[in-house]
Amino acid sequence: MADHSALPLVVLAERFASLPGIGMKSAQRLAYYVMSMDEESVEDFAQALIDAKKNVHSCKCCQNLTERELCPICSDDERDKSIICVVESPKDVTAFERTREYGGVYHVLHGLLSPMDGITPDRLRIRELLGRISAGGVEEVIMATNPTVEGDATAMYIAGLLKPMGITVTRLAFGLPVGGILEYADEITLFKALENRNTM
Amino acid sequence: MADHSALPLVVLAERFASLPGIGMKSAQRLAYYVMSMDEESVEDFAQALIDAKKNVHSCKCCQNLTERELCPICSDDERDKSIICVVESPKDVTAFERTREYGGVYHVLHGLLSPMDGITPDRLRIRELLGRISAGGVEEVIMATNPTVEGDATAMYIAGLLKPMGITVTRLAFGLPVGGILEYADEITLFKALENRNTM
Repeated sequence: MADHSALPLVVLAERFASLPGIGMKSAQRLAYYVMSMDEESVEDFAQALIDAKKNVHSCKCCQNLTERELCPICSDDERDKSIICVVESPKDVTAFERTREYGGVYHVLHGLLSPMDGITPDRLRIRELLGRISAGGVEEVIMATNPTVEGDATAMYIAGLLKPMGITVTRLAFGLPVGGILEYADEITLFKALENRNTM
Repeated sequence: MADHSALPLVVLAERFASLPGIGMKSAQRLAYYVMSMDEESVEDFAQALIDAKKNVHSCKCCQNLTERELCPICSDDERDKSIICVVESPKDVTAFERTREYGGVYHVLHGLLSPMDGITPDRLRIRELLGRISAGGVEEVIMATNPTVEGDATAMYIAGLLKPMGITVTRLAFGLPVGGILEYADEITLFKALENRNTM
């Protein structure tokens, strides 16, 4: 938007454009759309942004995003705490939960190793994973990172740390299309990948 | 997102999904992205939403969106007030301003006639346009609605009201691809369409 547009609309469009996957043209459309919403809906939207940021944080156990101290999965007595599925991001937990076939718990790394981008092991939640395993009771860790270069490297790195601790470390079966993105896999593919997991 | 996701994130994703062109999958990604933003940026975003809605309203003259009483174009002494370009929406004003070739002023209808959808003349800012012309000093009105069924019908309807008032009413030349959307036209096409406008 050029300077003849109302300034608050330009600012709003720029905020939308700063989100991933939203270009300037879409951002302008969204800003104009907000003008057509009623005031209450706009305030609810603003509040939803603030609430999510303020009230959601990492679960003290699995590091998944939650508004409680311990997330619903970690605090569920019916989940098998002896098996931990290690994923890159909270989106991946959602993808696994959709299969309705996994009864263990998770550990969210919040990223993958990528030394070129400055993502070294200390930037991920690996220390917290080692802490959980040191606390005892864990028998198997499933490395469920994406089948990409970074995903494989991260799985290999963590497997190297865990094996000396006497833990079975498995990797998702490559039923997933190599180079694919885990969160887009359909339920059956993801379930097969889980079922055919291999010892690393 | 299923119920194992943090509730404020589900709410935020639903807000994003209520925007046009954003599906549930993209909305979830955006909600997670918000979690990765720093708190100040999230608050700025929320404030931008509220500011845009609260401080932006219609210009009392041309009905374009502005945070002032009179928009920058209407209050610019160098713009030719004797020629009014009538458009459907504020986005179209932005498109014309990008041509840098139009020196007149605008009138934003905030919609097009569409009796099937209940958009009758009283729902558009036609009364305000007639008021401007009655006030005198206007020589030409350019009907610059999209070359679609609704755009043409709206142009015809307004031309019918204006011609008895002794005003020259012109229509954008059909350099625009018929059935196309005005805001996506490139600058040159739009300028040609403006240059070759015809008396209605």
